[in-house]
Amino acid sequence: MIIALAQLNYHIGNFERNTTAITSAIQEAKNKGADIVVFAELAIGGYPAKDLLRSPAFLDGCENSLAEIASQCQGIACIIGAPVRNTSGKGKPLYNAALFIVDGKVQQVVHKGLLPDYDVFDEYRYFQPADDFKCITYKGRKVALTICEDLWNIAVPKLYQRSPMDVLKEENPDLIINIAASPFSYNQLRERMEVLQTHAQQANVPLLYLNQIGAHADIIFDGRSIAMDASGELVDMMASFEEQLNYYELGNRTVSAWHGPVTVLPPLDTPLIHQALLLGIRDYFAKSGFKKAVVGLSGGIDSAVVAALACEALGAENVMAVLMPSVYSSDHSVTDALDLVRNAGCRHEIIPIQPMAGEFEQSLGTAFDGLLPDVTEENIQARIRGTLLMSFSNKLGYILLNTSNKSEAAVGYGTLYGDMAGALGVIGDVYKTQVYHLASYINREREIIPQHTIVKPPSAELRPGQKDSDSLPDYELLDSVLFQYIENEKSALQIIALGFEETLVHRVLNMVDRAEFKRFQSPPILRVSSKAFGAGRAMPLVARYPA
Amino acid sequence: MIIALAQLNYHIGNFERNTTAITSAIQEAKNKGADIVVFAELAIGGYPAKDLLRSPAFLDGCENSLAEIASQCQGIACIIGAPVRNTSGKGKPLYNAALFIVDGKVQQVVHKGLLPDYDVFDEYRYFQPADDFKCITYKGRKVALTICEDLWNIAVPKLYQRSPMDVLKEENPDLIINIAASPFSYNQLRERMEVLQTHAQQANVPLLYLNQIGAHADIIFDGRSIAMDASGELVDMMASFEEQLNYYELGNRTVSAWHGPVTVLPPLDTPLIHQALLLGIRDYFAKSGFKKAVVGLSGGIDSAVVAALACEALGAENVMAVLMPSVYSSDHSVTDALDLVRNAGCRHEIIPIQPMAGEFEQSLGTAFDGLLPDVTEENIQARIRGTLLMSFSNKLGYILLNTSNKSEAAVGYGTLYGDMAGALGVIGDVYKTQVYHLASYINREREIIPQHTIVKPPSAELRPGQKDSDSLPDYELLDSVLFQYIENEKSALQIIALGFEETLVHRVLNMVDRAEFKRFQSPPILRVSSKAFGAGRAMPLVARYPA
Repeated sequence: MIIALAQLNYHIGNFERNTTAITSAIQEAKNKGADIVVFAELAIGGYPAKDLLRSPAFLDGCENSLAEIASQCQGIACIIGAPVRNTSGKGKPLYNAALFIVDGKVQQVVHKGLLPDYDVFDEYRYFQPADDFKCITYKGRKVALTICEDLWNIAVPKLYQRSPMDVLKEENPDLIINIAASPFSYNQLRERMEVLQTHAQQANVPLLYLNQIGAHADIIFDGRSIAMDASGELVDMMASFEEQLNYYELGNRTVSAWHGPVTVLPPLDTPLIHQALLLGIRDYFAKSGFKKAVVGLSGGIDSAVVAALACEALGAENVMAVLMPSVYSSDHSVTDALDLVRNAGCRHEIIPIQPMAGEFEQSLGTAFDGLLPDVTEENIQARIRGTLLMSFSNKLGYILLNTSNKSEAAVGYGTLYGDMAGALGVIGDVYKTQVYHLASYINREREIIPQHTIVKPPSAELRPGQKDSDSLPDYELLDSVLFQYIENEKSALQIIALGFEETLVHRVLNMVDRAEFKRFQSPPILRVSSKAFGAGRAMPLVARYPA
Repeated sequence: MIIALAQLNYHIGNFERNTTAITSAIQEAKNKGADIVVFAELAIGGYPAKDLLRSPAFLDGCENSLAEIASQCQGIACIIGAPVRNTSGKGKPLYNAALFIVDGKVQQVVHKGLLPDYDVFDEYRYFQPADDFKCITYKGRKVALTICEDLWNIAVPKLYQRSPMDVLKEENPDLIINIAASPFSYNQLRERMEVLQTHAQQANVPLLYLNQIGAHADIIFDGRSIAMDASGELVDMMASFEEQLNYYELGNRTVSAWHGPVTVLPPLDTPLIHQALLLGIRDYFAKSGFKKAVVGLSGGIDSAVVAALACEALGAENVMAVLMPSVYSSDHSVTDALDLVRNAGCRHEIIPIQPMAGEFEQSLGTAFDGLLPDVTEENIQARIRGTLLMSFSNKLGYILLNTSNKSEAAVGYGTLYGDMAGALGVIGDVYKTQVYHLASYINREREIIPQHTIVKPPSAELRPGQKDSDSLPDYELLDSVLFQYIENEKSALQIIALGFEETLVHRVLNMVDRAEFKRFQSPPILRVSSKAFGAGRAMPLVARYPA
């Protein structure tokens, strides 16, 4: 039996586009002679559709798509994920389902049992868990068809006496198929492999794991679908962040690539993050119907990396860089930014902000009479820049890309409505030290990020001679503490026990806690780590935080 | 048996404060001769503590508080809500529990079974559902002790064969007690009453329902705890939005107020919303440790109402109004604003924005050469005002109150980083037409909102002679359509079927869908309706919406 895995990029609610992509893949797989073609979890409608799942019009759209897709399944069977209505009148109104379509008809519907509701997931908000688990049978072969989390066995196991695979194993299947919507984080691949290996070995059958690719504002799906032997041996891994249609032949306890094996090259972290961010930018624009971006360029590394990524993702001709020097800007801030513009090939404008800053100072003179300059004046500069950048957005339809990094977002080292403005946070889940790695990687073939931007000490340049190190610990140290607090969820005491200096740890954690109100109003952030600011981290705004 | 209901205001994570309030109430109830005192759901630690529930330090704080509270329960029993650890090693790490404390010791722990995960709730993220349900017994009386949703029977009923009350009823209890954290929305009281009545009548026993009061940024708890006879007759309703300690005597199938009955006066919507917003403002400041607010005053009704509410909630001496007229401002915009300042008694500053606006225009002249004025120039004005207001916040520590109403937020009639700036959206869940009702109510004894502000046609005054009605439908009509779409979740077709004009409906719904990216970056909004923008409405940012 030949099984086609269709690793596609879905667009939430864009039924025409998704249906065309799905039916094209069905046609191609049929022409190549596949017996069955497999699509990802909730491929119809897209994932995560969130509260659109409450819209009757959206659900009608899903049903119409399904009818059209089913009509194409003549001479080839199909497995595809979709929301289906729960008509029992009891419980949540929908199931997260895998539909098994043969001869143009839905022959069997498999419901998802384990519904994740941790981190970025909230499936209990919409879906009713499965009542039971049954294999599907096709051409004499029995398949344990499961949906994503049903192989993970960690959410609400109490719902069932036994795990979904424990039930399915009793039918002695010939193959496990798992259709997924598994978000990318740079450290998730190993766990994914281990989980799949365990199931293949325990059931002693081969396993096909199909993920999707694509991004929807924050969450990025990485693909890297997997074919695995009954021994748990990796047979093939599909591309990361790219659509692919691959074919596998099911043998006796084996599965093999059908059109020659694909090379498995697990990339290093930085190249992978680089790919993820490019897809994140590209999909945000493509799926929102935008073409052009605007970036504020300071001469520093964050904005340089974002501008370079934008040029690569969207084409340099679609990127406008705006340089907005102040009286506190060093000479090199403009020359470094111009070097980047030349290397990357984008357009630019230079607008000095002193005229506006001077008027703000004068207009506020009476109200602030006798008070010394402080962070107020620094924030005014940042907000003038935010207003100028948004004017490019308003006047010319360019989308403002935000250039804040994760270290800044964590400690609140940024100005709301100023440098925190933008439609999409490109590197908001990348720590400052990781931004440097990204910069080196971007320069792997030729200099794009100017060398001087990489070597000079980081500065917001909001007052004379200012350096980030005046207000913040050294970034190597800061990022290490932040990683323990944010990704590893360690307490102050636990971090101190790792050997970090006590006053430093309390100072950093206090900065993080106090910046929650700023992050609440920050743009959506492309997620590349296991714990990004945004959907997966939900802290109360008004609370006393534990010490 | 005398039962004290302690309707208190809890502060998330502020253990000292909560523990003091709780032990004071225990002492007072004991002195008055009560047999048992009852506190709300998750009183220890506060609700919703969200991801603080993942912090070991927070959970230690809960356990330390519990130990101190238990030690006070000598000669009086106590029922109190708290998170308790699930030590089984299976499932979620916590239970949402009601602790029954006698003679200084926890005698029985009741776990919540039905965990809401719709709208603003996400309890499945943290809690494991109960395994079973058992009554507690005290002084020969059996009590069906339940936690909030366990009386509602709507979430995940499939978890159990029978509802929690079906199980508890078999023990023939003498009383139902429900401890709750039930958020306020102006139309929720009737449903709450019906649910409680059904349970009292079905079990044929009296019922005591204890809610909490207080606000945490967006969600507001209204109190209005209830005592009800076995016949479902309302015996007493406690205060709305105020702390109270009331006493009830349990008879045979009856319950009666123990220190004379409290008059039940279900208030009209507007007074209730007025109270809710005052508590929302007051608690945001008190619990965040702030005192002073700044509001931009345009002469229009939204900012006037917010300024008046702020003066009432915080004291006029703590409110700074900033008037920022432009060349497009009408004469009356300043005089109306000054009338409000005089009536409300707050301080004010006047800062014309033309000098800044002129400089922006000139600085952008080259880049925008040959392009006509459009929304860009309007947004620049709004962002200059946002920057000026944030300067007051930065320089003087005043908290900026946002003055956007729900109609504007719905259709995106506002400027990101401009009039959408602020730490707290005061009337972001109040439609424009409701703002007028609020204004009349605020003027119920004397004129605070100037009459001219109420009668003049609404205008953003961002270009010559501009009126809201140039860009938007009449507010009566707009709000009616918005209510059907947002609160009632009706589709375009369904709203048209109600008799609204087709092109209008499509135009309004399209505006709402396209403004999702703006609302993503808006401040937290005080929630007073059943469907506010914020936690309870989760729409994808990059998606095609159904027609």
